[in-house]
Amino acid sequence: MEQNRRYALGLDFGTLSVRAVLIDTKDGRTAGSAVSEYPHGVIDHALPVDTAGESNRDLPGPDWALEHPQDWLDCMAEAVRKAVSETKIRPGQIIGIGVDFTCSTLLPVDKAGDALCLTEKWSGNPHAWPKLWKHHAGAAYADRLTETAKVRGELWLPYYGRRISSEWAVPKIWQTAAEAPEVVDAADCIMEAGDWIVRKLCGTKGLNATAAGYKYLRGGMAPAPDHDFYAAADHVLAGVIEEKIPDVLPAFSCAGKLTEQAAEWLGLAAGTPVAAAGIDAHAAVPAAGLNRAGQMVITMGTSSCHMLISDRKAAVPGTFGTAVDGFIPGFYGYEAGQSAVGDSFAWVTDNLVPGRYVQEAAARGITIHQLLTEKAEQLRPGESGLVALDWLNGNRSILNDASLSGLIMGLTLHTRAEEIYRAEIEATAYGTRMINDNFAASGVPVEEIRVTGGISRKNRMAMQIYADVLHQPVHILDAASGSALGAAMYGAAAAGSAGGGYDSLTDASEAMKAPVRETVEPGAENEAVYDELYDIYRELHDQFGRQSDVMKRLRRRHI
Amino acid sequence: MEQNRRYALGLDFGTLSVRAVLIDTKDGRTAGSAVSEYPHGVIDHALPVDTAGESNRDLPGPDWALEHPQDWLDCMAEAVRKAVSETKIRPGQIIGIGVDFTCSTLLPVDKAGDALCLTEKWSGNPHAWPKLWKHHAGAAYADRLTETAKVRGELWLPYYGRRISSEWAVPKIWQTAAEAPEVVDAADCIMEAGDWIVRKLCGTKGLNATAAGYKYLRGGMAPAPDHDFYAAADHVLAGVIEEKIPDVLPAFSCAGKLTEQAAEWLGLAAGTPVAAAGIDAHAAVPAAGLNRAGQMVITMGTSSCHMLISDRKAAVPGTFGTAVDGFIPGFYGYEAGQSAVGDSFAWVTDNLVPGRYVQEAAARGITIHQLLTEKAEQLRPGESGLVALDWLNGNRSILNDASLSGLIMGLTLHTRAEEIYRAEIEATAYGTRMINDNFAASGVPVEEIRVTGGISRKNRMAMQIYADVLHQPVHILDAASGSALGAAMYGAAAAGSAGGGYDSLTDASEAMKAPVRETVEPGAENEAVYDELYDIYRELHDQFGRQSDVMKRLRRRHI
Repeated sequence: MEQNRRYALGLDFGTLSVRAVLIDTKDGRTAGSAVSEYPHGVIDHALPVDTAGESNRDLPGPDWALEHPQDWLDCMAEAVRKAVSETKIRPGQIIGIGVDFTCSTLLPVDKAGDALCLTEKWSGNPHAWPKLWKHHAGAAYADRLTETAKVRGELWLPYYGRRISSEWAVPKIWQTAAEAPEVVDAADCIMEAGDWIVRKLCGTKGLNATAAGYKYLRGGMAPAPDHDFYAAADHVLAGVIEEKIPDVLPAFSCAGKLTEQAAEWLGLAAGTPVAAAGIDAHAAVPAAGLNRAGQMVITMGTSSCHMLISDRKAAVPGTFGTAVDGFIPGFYGYEAGQSAVGDSFAWVTDNLVPGRYVQEAAARGITIHQLLTEKAEQLRPGESGLVALDWLNGNRSILNDASLSGLIMGLTLHTRAEEIYRAEIEATAYGTRMINDNFAASGVPVEEIRVTGGISRKNRMAMQIYADVLHQPVHILDAASGSALGAAMYGAAAAGSAGGGYDSLTDASEAMKAPVRETVEPGAENEAVYDELYDIYRELHDQFGRQSDVMKRLRRRHI
Repeated sequence: MEQNRRYALGLDFGTLSVRAVLIDTKDGRTAGSAVSEYPHGVIDHALPVDTAGESNRDLPGPDWALEHPQDWLDCMAEAVRKAVSETKIRPGQIIGIGVDFTCSTLLPVDKAGDALCLTEKWSGNPHAWPKLWKHHAGAAYADRLTETAKVRGELWLPYYGRRISSEWAVPKIWQTAAEAPEVVDAADCIMEAGDWIVRKLCGTKGLNATAAGYKYLRGGMAPAPDHDFYAAADHVLAGVIEEKIPDVLPAFSCAGKLTEQAAEWLGLAAGTPVAAAGIDAHAAVPAAGLNRAGQMVITMGTSSCHMLISDRKAAVPGTFGTAVDGFIPGFYGYEAGQSAVGDSFAWVTDNLVPGRYVQEAAARGITIHQLLTEKAEQLRPGESGLVALDWLNGNRSILNDASLSGLIMGLTLHTRAEEIYRAEIEATAYGTRMINDNFAASGVPVEEIRVTGGISRKNRMAMQIYADVLHQPVHILDAASGSALGAAMYGAAAAGSAGGGYDSLTDASEAMKAPVRETVEPGAENEAVYDELYDIYRELHDQFGRQSDVMKRLRRRHI
């Protein structure tokens, strides 16, 4: 039986590790899975000694975040071999390969397709290294791009929340061009990391349509930025964009076939179809099986990403990008996000608990997180009298402002750690409601919510709070990794039905989607209390995010 | 030598204990000291079973706070005997006795001078028991008094911060009269606890002038409330005020001589002069040796009390009371306060620390408080990027609003416990600066600052922060208990020079005042940073305290 089955290989490149999964193309069941962590992790202090030559080289500033491309390659090979070896699957049963990657994570590449930073000549130049999605050192370039677009009245700007993020590709490219023109000159092209992996697998050089739509301002909702725009910002930048960025590959297409060399390296079969790359969070959309306008999937981990599909075209303030066929074919894809979710819960458990809780948890052999959850579950909504702003890492949507910070109001001498813990969870739920209310006000209402990611699996209380605050059922998906599952669907679609897969991502999603494990219904008795608290949250949100600059000033003087 | 010395006995009745000190009248040196803790502490849940008969009787509400008068008597005797027994002082060497007490703490008393609650008939009625200063269950009566005064344009109101506090006497008396008229009917009078102690010592029934000035609205800055005012509020209240409140004793006078019975009970000499009682915090003013307009003493413990003497008459918004000859003869006495200081620092150390700090402190054999202080001392001013509002127990001055709450702004995923700890200390310093700026703006500037109390002795970092934030040297007094020392001065002044003491409280203070142990100078390099942060604090202060009601609404829905 197993012998006749067919599998798609999904490769999900996150910030700290890569996961390889083998998914049964018939029903989406996971047959094998392995994770491999990048030895160098995020490089945010100094270039690695082994490649930088003489000694550690300090990075130019605190907002730098790089990665090591050799980590990606080595870890991919390890994860693939491990995932396959744990099963009895033969390479021939793997009908397609899909890749998702953090985005925009980009690197200068030479004519042979190799990373510039891995050559001796360039290894000491930080600009030769991959700039990770959360490399924010190009923030000033992002702001100048926004200003230029505003002055020129660029029609695409409203589809990007009216503000270009330093996480996207163009500011990073501009920073590289402005601060290290010699690196750009030496590069044949600048590639997204996901596209570079695909090139390593099948030899095709291109820019995936998803990245183009969300990180290169080419989402198709309005005419893309043209030469005049880039030249108005900086004519060097205009030249780089025109000459050094690969052409866009068709959305969700097959990029090519696995080369002999790559097949040998990974222990797979040469000729296996390789899909064009996708963005890690976005891969959760087909994995969640979204296929109807008004559906949203939220990936909830250290941060959250909200992806809404709609048949209506709207310019929604505070979105993180909107694109035609953005996540799956046939729908406008609206992206929003919250920059600290699980991270902010962990901040409380790791930093703000009484000594007696530490002892109690140790005595009972449970984690502080478990103890705090146990205590927080006993609290009635609103009982603590606390309302927090969930901006511990700035605000992504709907304010798009990194200079905002976290706030807790309502503290008294009786306030306890579990109350702060619960208030932080509630704050992220209010933040999601703010995003969804904003979508509704812009004409693209959220009619159904599915969730995936670590928080959705591990924090039942949080899911109930979200349902109560949002007044909507929350459907929790049964997927260890929604993104990896989605990547496998890219692979299955790349194979086509002739290759034993599917003719479209939509078909692949329909067959392979993650089932709903549990639906959490809102508790009617809590909705009124949460409405009242949400009103207070919204007042604080507008006060500090829009009306007063006091919080921004504090943060700026701090930075 | 010791044989020829003369001593004054100071009795300082705090919230949880009474301290007896024997002070050398020549130089203010402490010869003996003893503390005795009230067995019943603060009664805030149920009447004590031993007197209520059948069983515990629950108090009517959560804001109730009572004390047990037998505790005061028993603990006084114990503390006096212990303090004397530790020295070789003979009763004849003690030339005067002074008493200070929390205020307004009042109780219904029968014709014989006994507490009504200690009789079998009344022991089950909560209104027969002493209402402690922090009994807030009469808050609604306080608000109605404020409204009545505002409507009538009472001239004294501006000298009481334009708002009557539930801590004061009149709302407590009204509550008793309204909710338990049978108790008031049965009482011969309603007395301040301090005055009741004095009556137990020397038989004199009176109301001390300090309490009259600060807690009975008779401060002499404007005509006192008259019959029409009280009758406008409630004619029953008017009757009680006129008939059941003892006459005012002259300020800082001798109330009488120790009776034979009291002398035997306490092991002292009959005929020893007993001073009229004072208010606990206020006794720190003579103890600090204030004798020049513009001087302030701050008692810093769980909460802070600010006492400023001035030769200028002003109606200062947000003060907690102003009186002619209020603290010492010859000056207007302005009182302000912060309702959570040491309490808020302890709230952090007790509740909000990482598990690893708990382990580190245990391994090093130090307290969490010591560890947090050590880490907080390493921080540069402003480094944390945090600004807090120090309203964990509401705001006393200058907003006088119990419905306000604590707030922390500037939180990030990197915020650590010591940063929150330091931010809370800084917030209380900003709060003091707000009080002092308010005095200056009202024409009564603070020219010199002396501090006493637990925080001043134990928290050197806090003292430096205060000096930096206030731009003024902070003189730390060398006194284990400033209030007890001040009470002894009351006793020395009651004796008069003919009795081996002094002819005025001023003279007693000059001779016996606490020396300055250390003067903390402001660090010029920190003042600019703190000015900037104080500006931010002030914006938050005005935002939440004055412009927006969002914080008050949150707290009210919580209460």
